[in-house]
Amino acid sequence: MKPYAELTEQELEQEISSLRREYRRYQNMELQLDMSRGKPCREQLDLSMGMMDALNSQADLSCEDGTDVRSYGVLTGIQEAKVLLGDMMENNPDNIFIFGNSSLNVMFDVVSRAYSHGIMGNTPWCKLDKVKWLCPVPGYDRHFSITEYFGIEMIPVPMSPTGPDMDMVEKLVAEDEAIKGIWCVPKYSNPQGYSYSDETVRRFARLKPAAKDFRIYWDNAYGIHHLYDDKQDYLIEILAECKRAGNPDLVYKFSSTSKITFPGSGIAAMAASQNNLEDIRTTLKYQTIGYDKVNQLRHVRFFGDIHGMVEHMRKHAEIIRPKFEAVEQTFDENLSGLGIGSWTCPRGGYFISFDSLPGCAAAIVDKAKKAGVKLTPAGATWPYHHDPNDSNIRIAPTYPPMEDLKTAANLFTLCVRMVSAEKLLKEKKEAVPVSEKNEI
Amino acid sequence: MKPYAELTEQELEQEISSLRREYRRYQNMELQLDMSRGKPCREQLDLSMGMMDALNSQADLSCEDGTDVRSYGVLTGIQEAKVLLGDMMENNPDNIFIFGNSSLNVMFDVVSRAYSHGIMGNTPWCKLDKVKWLCPVPGYDRHFSITEYFGIEMIPVPMSPTGPDMDMVEKLVAEDEAIKGIWCVPKYSNPQGYSYSDETVRRFARLKPAAKDFRIYWDNAYGIHHLYDDKQDYLIEILAECKRAGNPDLVYKFSSTSKITFPGSGIAAMAASQNNLEDIRTTLKYQTIGYDKVNQLRHVRFFGDIHGMVEHMRKHAEIIRPKFEAVEQTFDENLSGLGIGSWTCPRGGYFISFDSLPGCAAAIVDKAKKAGVKLTPAGATWPYHHDPNDSNIRIAPTYPPMEDLKTAANLFTLCVRMVSAEKLLKEKKEAVPVSEKNEI
Repeated sequence: MKPYAELTEQELEQEISSLRREYRRYQNMELQLDMSRGKPCREQLDLSMGMMDALNSQADLSCEDGTDVRSYGVLTGIQEAKVLLGDMMENNPDNIFIFGNSSLNVMFDVVSRAYSHGIMGNTPWCKLDKVKWLCPVPGYDRHFSITEYFGIEMIPVPMSPTGPDMDMVEKLVAEDEAIKGIWCVPKYSNPQGYSYSDETVRRFARLKPAAKDFRIYWDNAYGIHHLYDDKQDYLIEILAECKRAGNPDLVYKFSSTSKITFPGSGIAAMAASQNNLEDIRTTLKYQTIGYDKVNQLRHVRFFGDIHGMVEHMRKHAEIIRPKFEAVEQTFDENLSGLGIGSWTCPRGGYFISFDSLPGCAAAIVDKAKKAGVKLTPAGATWPYHHDPNDSNIRIAPTYPPMEDLKTAANLFTLCVRMVSAEKLLKEKKEAVPVSEKNEI
Repeated sequence: MKPYAELTEQELEQEISSLRREYRRYQNMELQLDMSRGKPCREQLDLSMGMMDALNSQADLSCEDGTDVRSYGVLTGIQEAKVLLGDMMENNPDNIFIFGNSSLNVMFDVVSRAYSHGIMGNTPWCKLDKVKWLCPVPGYDRHFSITEYFGIEMIPVPMSPTGPDMDMVEKLVAEDEAIKGIWCVPKYSNPQGYSYSDETVRRFARLKPAAKDFRIYWDNAYGIHHLYDDKQDYLIEILAECKRAGNPDLVYKFSSTSKITFPGSGIAAMAASQNNLEDIRTTLKYQTIGYDKVNQLRHVRFFGDIHGMVEHMRKHAEIIRPKFEAVEQTFDENLSGLGIGSWTCPRGGYFISFDSLPGCAAAIVDKAKKAGVKLTPAGATWPYHHDPNDSNIRIAPTYPPMEDLKTAANLFTLCVRMVSAEKLLKEKKEAVPVSEKNEI
């Protein structure tokens, strides 16, 4: 088929008419499919059922150092969990704190702490007139929600396949002391699945922020979440790079096992310099006596070591790789050459990012919804849920069963075609000189 | 033996000399005992090992409503956990949120939220010049630490066996809009083991605070932690009482299973009015996607229902009741009639509160430490760690094995006698008229 832009009004009308028939066919199927969130599917969850046997009533619930994990204490996590997650995050266990079940909660707490008490003796943000934040776009909606909740002004920074626009990042952080942070998903980014290039990471580590309490919020959520054995992205380890660059305190790094074992019942971790960790410990000791050490030990006993975890991730990949490929194939079959959308083909992570013609994303998501397929709301990948181009849609292929996913992907492309054709037709009609319009 | 106050200088000197010999005997034993924190002992922890089998790899990890607890979501907790903890807390499940592993963390978060964003549309506390708080004393050090961390001015309110001085509470909260809360451990209080009388609870529910965002922070940590089957304290349920009094939003109630199953690996809960819960939900949704539902289900499957939990608590009581009684008996044998200290004999909870002669507590704790027995630091039961009388010491009998506990209790009473005798002797000497003093 020709690119839609080259179709005549009549051809477009025919196409729309045909697409609408097809759309009604989907509506009659009364679908209830969900491609909205990065949730593992049932088969993925089943992979971790062995974890339920990792500790039983006969088990010795003692750590290697003799600590009984059943009781209070050990504020920053048990040593063997620091070792395991240290290997996972490519950091020294001494630079790691283990938290509860949610790295999002850890990030929220870090921002909340900076807001109420300040970072390393700097003015608490609640005492400042203005706090700003850099947000690579498209990005992760829950990141943006945290900064929005704390009244922080968010500045979008364009993403590219090599990472955020570093010229812009360098300039802004150097100029404006009100800029206190930047949200990053540096590997298999949410939603594009891009991984920051070596140059990007090197430039991050060498930022010269005006604000002493500026930090890079480095959410390495998908560090070992590869889709392929033979095609993997590699990322320069940011803590080490910051240290080498003479900026050891510049970064907070976050990760968790949420998409490795059970989402919501995993363990979260943070890696940072000793100065940063010590600063956080001073709050942490008021906040809690300690996190769930039984679950920390459960994870350690289940995986044994990082090799066990990597093998486990290979099993995840075997389940979800075909799903990514099915979506990409459907997009390719139904959209290639039409000039009405582009999409990413990531090597890992949980998402595919789709860009429609400007002004079509909300209508596409709405059309899909009305035929029973739930997508992440248009705009969600932008601060304040506002995508100025109304073009980005995050696709989450992991959760639906394969057949449902194919149906949903086909319906999605149908909606893309329908909305794009309608838009182009409307534009064509509006392009007709005013004098020729039939004024009523 | 006579009361120490009636001993002559010579008798006191003899007593001190004898006590010091005894003290050196303890020092030579090179003890390493800990009566400092309310930690369950190993035998208590063993009671909950069955929980490790409550979920295994063959288990169906679905809730009654079909929710798969292994995945994301269910922000406020699974229904069956709300039912179980609702029964435990004597609240309707609809009034309950289930959180993570620590009710202390929940309290911290509630205060933090009020500080950064305010309660129900009221001014965030970070924007106020002054925030004050009422602190029944002696009380729980970790409560006081939270309010201290947020720069809140703490006002001590005397405790009695029926609860805080309600005349003072009523007057202060009615007069001063800066007073935003009061810490309460209403049942088997920390450290005295007192339970609020019916009148106290009724008066709490009828407070008329000047501040709209005043809340009672009702930490019912020991609601079912009885020591005796036949002698139990009963507490009027505060949410219901507040509702009856026309003040449904006046209270936040907290509890957890920390001293029921495993401390640090239990589940925490909050009960409050719908208005309060809704207010909290508006933050919670930014903070996390949800807490550890697997652990919630594990608790539900282990206990079955509230009866299972009550039976479980009976086993705890069988282990720790003899420890409380041993301490009380030792205190009785070694201190009764000497007029140098008083102590509580609670029917539940985790602590015994000891009051020495004024000005002796720090010296007693120090002496005990130098003979190898760690006690909660003197002053810990007061805001800012400052006990103006230097007399209150919190005794935690649960953790040490029985023989160690008896040794520790004996050493403790020895330290009490030694420090008291030394103080009285010093006072007697200082009371000698100046003219008779031998001036060098």
